[in-house]
Amino acid sequence: MRKIIFASTNENKFKEILLHLRNFDLEIEFLRFKTNEIQSENLEDIALEKSKVAFERIGQPLIVEDTGLFIDSLNGFPGPYSSYVLQTIGNKGLLDLLSNKSNRLACFRSVIAYNDGKNNLTFSGEARGNISDHISEVGWGYDPIFIPEGSSITYGQQGITNKISKSHRTHALNHFAEWCCRYYSK
Amino acid sequence: MRKIIFASTNENKFKEILLHLRNFDLEIEFLRFKTNEIQSENLEDIALEKSKVAFERIGQPLIVEDTGLFIDSLNGFPGPYSSYVLQTIGNKGLLDLLSNKSNRLACFRSVIAYNDGKNNLTFSGEARGNISDHISEVGWGYDPIFIPEGSSITYGQQGITNKISKSHRTHALNHFAEWCCRYYSK
Repeated sequence: MRKIIFASTNENKFKEILLHLRNFDLEIEFLRFKTNEIQSENLEDIALEKSKVAFERIGQPLIVEDTGLFIDSLNGFPGPYSSYVLQTIGNKGLLDLLSNKSNRLACFRSVIAYNDGKNNLTFSGEARGNISDHISEVGWGYDPIFIPEGSSITYGQQGITNKISKSHRTHALNHFAEWCCRYYSK
Repeated sequence: MRKIIFASTNENKFKEILLHLRNFDLEIEFLRFKTNEIQSENLEDIALEKSKVAFERIGQPLIVEDTGLFIDSLNGFPGPYSSYVLQTIGNKGLLDLLSNKSNRLACFRSVIAYNDGKNNLTFSGEARGNISDHISEVGWGYDPIFIPEGSSITYGQQGITNKISKSHRTHALNHFAEWCCRYYSK
């Protein structure tokens, strides 16, 4: 079975990835990895650059993942800076910014970059939805305020198993895992 | 007279720098330069890294400048991501985030990084103040909402000459220019 490193500081992401990838013939291992990401409005650029730095240090086939929440009426804010925004103004801050807005459409985007020293590719997935009008108090990150299309409850309220059945990260993971299994079975 | 390149995309900054540096024996020249900055909560790290990349490309003594607006009651937000935040939620968004907050203290920080291939140094300056409760509609960046300590009007309303008499960027420039004149007179 092909072993891939997931290089990240975020164990919540790893739990989701692990749970989903058991459907594929891949072994995934968590490795705590921190680097200065580049500032860019393009998640692909951020993930590709991070995967290069990670491969230089780790030297084994690996993936990194970058997520952004893009809110339509805030011109895409917080976008690629989701992590910093969460640490400073938090979900409460986002709801304050939307308090007078009727358009609450948002899109979660996930980009996975794979690097094995030879291949350096990205795989993306997205989930459209709405920002709730209050914080659901369950889940991590923006999950407590994101209601995916076709649902009446937030990612946080759905619980991990339901969330990963069709989340933005799952879509990106499917693209990656399908490519990976095809590539290594050659 | 020693010639220094100011590598940036921001001509408003250049106007301020040019106006202030005429008090020193330095010639400053604008060169449009864009690169992917790193994501960091530390302005020094961002400016140092940017100055290295700029020197590799330009090969002449140069400065870059990075500014952040750190708002106390928003845990330092928008901090180093001031430029992205301005493009997305703008000054209106910041006022929305502060609408229920009595503490409107904020600090503008400027970091200049100098690189000539041999020396790679930073010089910083700051200005404390308050965020106004409405947008003054004059000035660029966050100047229309920042009231420096000891003033009753915003940076924007002060006009460029008054603003640069004691702005965060001016403090950083003074540190840089004093060092530079001393260094090159050796």
